[in-house]
Amino acid sequence: MAARIRAAVVGSTGYGGVDLLRLLRRHPHVEVTSVISSSSAGQDISGGYPHLADIYEGTLDPVDVDLIRQKADVVFAATPSGASSELVPAFLDAGLKVIDLSGDFRLKSGALYEKWYRKKPADEKYLVRAVYGLCEVFGDEVKGSDFVSNPGCYPTAALLGLIPAVKAGWVDPETIIIDAKSGVSGAGRSLSLTVHYSEINENFKAYRVNSHQHTPEIEMALEKATGATVPVTFTPHLVPMTRGILCTMYARLKEHRTEQDFIDLYREFYRGRPFVRIRGRGVWPATKEVWGSNYCDIGFSVDERTHRVTILSVIDNLVKGAAGQAVQNLNLMMGWDESAGLELVPVYP
Amino acid sequence: MAARIRAAVVGSTGYGGVDLLRLLRRHPHVEVTSVISSSSAGQDISGGYPHLADIYEGTLDPVDVDLIRQKADVVFAATPSGASSELVPAFLDAGLKVIDLSGDFRLKSGALYEKWYRKKPADEKYLVRAVYGLCEVFGDEVKGSDFVSNPGCYPTAALLGLIPAVKAGWVDPETIIIDAKSGVSGAGRSLSLTVHYSEINENFKAYRVNSHQHTPEIEMALEKATGATVPVTFTPHLVPMTRGILCTMYARLKEHRTEQDFIDLYREFYRGRPFVRIRGRGVWPATKEVWGSNYCDIGFSVDERTHRVTILSVIDNLVKGAAGQAVQNLNLMMGWDESAGLELVPVYP
Amino acid sequence: MAARIRAAVVGSTGYGGVDLLRLLRRHPHVEVTSVISSSSAGQDISGGYPHLADIYEGTLDPVDVDLIRQKADVVFAATPSGASSELVPAFLDAGLKVIDLSGDFRLKSGALYEKWYRKKPADEKYLVRAVYGLCEVFGDEVKGSDFVSNPGCYPTAALLGLIPAVKAGWVDPETIIIDAKSGVSGAGRSLSLTVHYSEINENFKAYRVNSHQHTPEIEMALEKATGATVPVTFTPHLVPMTRGILCTMYARLKEHRTEQDFIDLYREFYRGRPFVRIRGRGVWPATKEVWGSNYCDIGFSVDERTHRVTILSVIDNLVKGAAGQAVQNLNLMMGWDESAGLELVPVYP
Amino acid sequence: MAARIRAAVVGSTGYGGVDLLRLLRRHPHVEVTSVISSSSAGQDISGGYPHLADIYEGTLDPVDVDLIRQKADVVFAATPSGASSELVPAFLDAGLKVIDLSGDFRLKSGALYEKWYRKKPADEKYLVRAVYGLCEVFGDEVKGSDFVSNPGCYPTAALLGLIPAVKAGWVDPETIIIDAKSGVSGAGRSLSLTVHYSEINENFKAYRVNSHQHTPEIEMALEKATGATVPVTFTPHLVPMTRGILCTMYARLKEHRTEQDFIDLYREFYRGRPFVRIRGRGVWPATKEVWGSNYCDIGFSVDERTHRVTILSVIDNLVKGAAGQAVQNLNLMMGWDESAGLELVPVYP
Repeated sequence: MAARIRAAVVGSTGYGGVDLLRLLRRHPHVEVTSVISSSSAGQDISGGYPHLADIYEGTLDPVDVDLIRQKADVVFAATPSGASSELVPAFLDAGLKVIDLSGDFRLKSGALYEKWYRKKPADEKYLVRAVYGLCEVFGDEVKGSDFVSNPGCYPTAALLGLIPAVKAGWVDPETIIIDAKSGVSGAGRSLSLTVHYSEINENFKAYRVNSHQHTPEIEMALEKATGATVPVTFTPHLVPMTRGILCTMYARLKEHRTEQDFIDLYREFYRGRPFVRIRGRGVWPATKEVWGSNYCDIGFSVDERTHRVTILSVIDNLVKGAAGQAVQNLNLMMGWDESAGLELVPVYP
Repeated sequence: MAARIRAAVVGSTGYGGVDLLRLLRRHPHVEVTSVISSSSAGQDISGGYPHLADIYEGTLDPVDVDLIRQKADVVFAATPSGASSELVPAFLDAGLKVIDLSGDFRLKSGALYEKWYRKKPADEKYLVRAVYGLCEVFGDEVKGSDFVSNPGCYPTAALLGLIPAVKAGWVDPETIIIDAKSGVSGAGRSLSLTVHYSEINENFKAYRVNSHQHTPEIEMALEKATGATVPVTFTPHLVPMTRGILCTMYARLKEHRTEQDFIDLYREFYRGRPFVRIRGRGVWPATKEVWGSNYCDIGFSVDERTHRVTILSVIDNLVKGAAGQAVQNLNLMMGWDESAGLELVPVYP
Repeated sequence: MAARIRAAVVGSTGYGGVDLLRLLRRHPHVEVTSVISSSSAGQDISGGYPHLADIYEGTLDPVDVDLIRQKADVVFAATPSGASSELVPAFLDAGLKVIDLSGDFRLKSGALYEKWYRKKPADEKYLVRAVYGLCEVFGDEVKGSDFVSNPGCYPTAALLGLIPAVKAGWVDPETIIIDAKSGVSGAGRSLSLTVHYSEINENFKAYRVNSHQHTPEIEMALEKATGATVPVTFTPHLVPMTRGILCTMYARLKEHRTEQDFIDLYREFYRGRPFVRIRGRGVWPATKEVWGSNYCDIGFSVDERTHRVTILSVIDNLVKGAAGQAVQNLNLMMGWDESAGLELVPVYP
Repeated sequence: MAARIRAAVVGSTGYGGVDLLRLLRRHPHVEVTSVISSSSAGQDISGGYPHLADIYEGTLDPVDVDLIRQKADVVFAATPSGASSELVPAFLDAGLKVIDLSGDFRLKSGALYEKWYRKKPADEKYLVRAVYGLCEVFGDEVKGSDFVSNPGCYPTAALLGLIPAVKAGWVDPETIIIDAKSGVSGAGRSLSLTVHYSEINENFKAYRVNSHQHTPEIEMALEKATGATVPVTFTPHLVPMTRGILCTMYARLKEHRTEQDFIDLYREFYRGRPFVRIRGRGVWPATKEVWGSNYCDIGFSVDERTHRVTILSVIDNLVKGAAGQAVQNLNLMMGWDESAGLELVPVYP
């Protein structure tokens, strides 16, 4: 086997970062050589995460580009939106490969970013350079790239469920509605009343209705993949569970199609891609069926009464929706087997 | 105070029945004189429900119409669909007032019932006699009636959220989509793998997509209230929590309206009705905010980009969606204050 | 009916305070005339708690002793430990009756308080004046008192389970072990990583092992009730649920006793007290069986092999462990029916 | 690399069986050649477990000893107690290596088995042949054996926490109390009201107090490891979560010891064993910190006031408490690296 590539994980004290540490630990071609945290540098890696005891030893490194350049070949930036735009350019300028998990390099328009994120956008020079890493759709662009912007969790689930049908011209894109439900870990480890245990346990609610920052990302990628230029309706909800996203998506059929038509179309579209599984007739995926793994499972229901199709897709928001797809992007960048380090059986129950 | 009315609860070992026992215990005008179970007759009332110890003493009665007629003036039939159609006619023929919580008398067409429930419909003579007891909409018909069919949990949440907008002609009924999420208690106490703890905890899924039996009930009541004769898209989901329903509903606006327009319209529509609360701008209800109570809370979001309105409504599926609305119907039938026995503050957190 | 007493709730934005608002709303002899919050004064009462919309109108009052004295006859201080010691003396000096829900007036020794709470103790003058309001044990002292220190949640569950057996001399107090499990709401509404949803959902852990501040409170009250002067072993744990405490308690039997002996002893001890329910043989209480109510349910297992008894007691930590017992104390202070305003059927499921 | 050993999993539709499939899928030296279910033979392996789609293809085999002998070298019997005693002898007689996950071969006394399990015991010939596979304690006996009885979930957590202290003579074995809490998956996939979602969600309770069948297993293994012949007090509880066991264990110290003494003792006892991790001072393990992995984490608190030590141990009940330890036993039997196929980072959060 060839020498391993050396990886640094920045933002390792967030949930996306810590799941990267889990996945990279067993990657056959990667060695994690620096675990980085701006807030906790100098402390034990397992101090804030005792589940890592005996697995990751040593202390957290500071965010120091020179140090990272010495220790690593590739950087995973699991930093929050607003932080990545500051850090990533320096990593790139230092010659590091970068996979960024934030929202800072997904939208190509700085103005659009500013409108939806209400933060200062990244320098345009870097925006244009970033490849949007939705692996099963834009994977060819990722190959050989040295800078990937990893898709958001909701967009990953929504786009994998929508693109084949929209691209085939089977549904009217103007009628697309995405009703999305996410486990609470998507909100990260930062404290807030919204995800205070007693507030969200035994509770269910929508949030940022018609104003979530993943909306323009979905629209941008849908246009890029299918040519459709339409605003979509997107409603995120919080489910009292830790991991998992389910998107229930609705669209009007342009002409008569059966569930089996959709199953065949999607199986063909994702042929050879190891992480998308299409359910059979009358079976719809549940979030637990992908728990802890990099799968995206998809199912369908066609309603003759309303001439609409309902498409259901599920992912683990921290894996296929964050750390797992980031590793998958590294695999594509490096020309490795797409599933290297990601051959995880979902943990059930 | 006048003498109390005597009430019997049939099907008291189900979750709807046991919540009726909770609510009726503190009702100022009602005394529960018979607690009935076909499967557990003769056993202690609190045997299967230790939370009722010292509150309900005595044993469960069998289903015996003569006995019920002697002991009670009104019967709550908290029996499953398929059982009520057999039992309720005898109660009515015996001169008892009846509030039926099953689905057996909601649809006026036996054929439609048979299609969606895949069971034998009730005798048409009784179908036409039943008043559909969506209190805030059809309450006038309930007054003075002696036989009320209590609405389903999903229809209650959906209809209270949709009817004012459809009736006002503000939205295109052909575009209505109802994405509904329910706590697990809606599935009742009967054992099934679907609601086995380890299968649904930390899990989220859809079920009966485009085939749930509440679909025609929603369409029927929508037509009755607004004249709109349209098929709606309805998707139920299971949330890993015990109580609560949230409906996220979508429709295209016929012309420009603001959130404040909707708020004003709904506050006017529900003026004087104690159990519907309309949230202010930019605030949407969460299921926990009505937990254990008879409220239905509603909020709105208008999206200028897509010309759609998103309407969010929440109820406690066992209270406003079952036992609470049944008591509310009794109050209306008897001409009492609509909120008698129902002045419950939601339990939070 | 006589005029209602006027009550003020200080610390109404905490979970104990907000549950007081729920209970007092239906109290036949109480009117809440001032809802007070030092942090949110001037805001709508239902602003931070939308479940109170239409139930509590008006705005939050500041902590202003003169204002409170004008508006109220009795004050519930649902303020954190360390705050009550500052506020309560002024309320008392103003002639208000006070029920304090914090830990500040439970321990009679300031030094002991300082050791376990690591905070400055209250003025001794007020410490001696406070009656420790464990209603079923020290209720006689509460009658006619104007200052009650409401017991802690864990001590309430533990003491009601232990006192009859220790007082009867049936168990060796030196062998008492209290293994306690609490829902997360006991930690309050203040943000902390410990009760961040993703950290405690699907998780179970002990905390403050052998150092929890309720330990000396249990020992003090046990001595007061039984004369036993022993250190007890007490371990609190966090359960991934919102409400409920279960204490599993162990002690060695001094001589042979059966489960029925214990059942008889406890039923006799609590005869006439409406809120303690003793389970029959081979049945042990579960926390959900008291959910939302003021009950404390108790069960037993005697093990012939080890000569130990296991005593299991459950309460709702926010009701019998806080707001409910506080109302019960008010009832005793005022000479009302002990259960006034507290006739709540547990919400099940 | 040598050829892989061929493994059959009997009882693959239970939770222990399906977690074996997860673990064995990535085992470097094992190939699963037969997935067996008596109840579902002939159906797709992923039919009842869609999370296995594309991972395990083919259909479930029946329980047929001849077929198994042709297809496999080793059998994992993940069958219920009462079934293994019937099946395992035939597997052994056919020359297969067997790892049995049931309780049928753990107790060496048939009479004791009958008393606690209330079932017919296995043939004594096979009872004596089974090696009790608590890997870190009796691993030497496992090496080279061809029949291992895999320990129960509660005994694994309890014994790993107790044995070093008892063996060192630091604690009085007569004072041992084990207060154990388990996630619901320990109850398996069979339907029962106890683990019906709405009954156990937001609920906490004890069960089989002083009568759980794991009690004699703990006593037997404690005696075998330390010579102590004492009855222990053992109380199991159900936690509203899917996976995880925490044992809180109490014992009186024979002489003064500090927490650091215990930490040093245990680290020495488990030196070189990859799956036991000892927490540092003042830190106690939480169940989520081992979720999905084969670790057992242990922490301590010494109380000077009561002269007791509190020992806390956690495992994932389906991994170290079932499937993971079974694989670990196979590794020991075959002389492989103890952690082959088990190098799993806990999934957090």
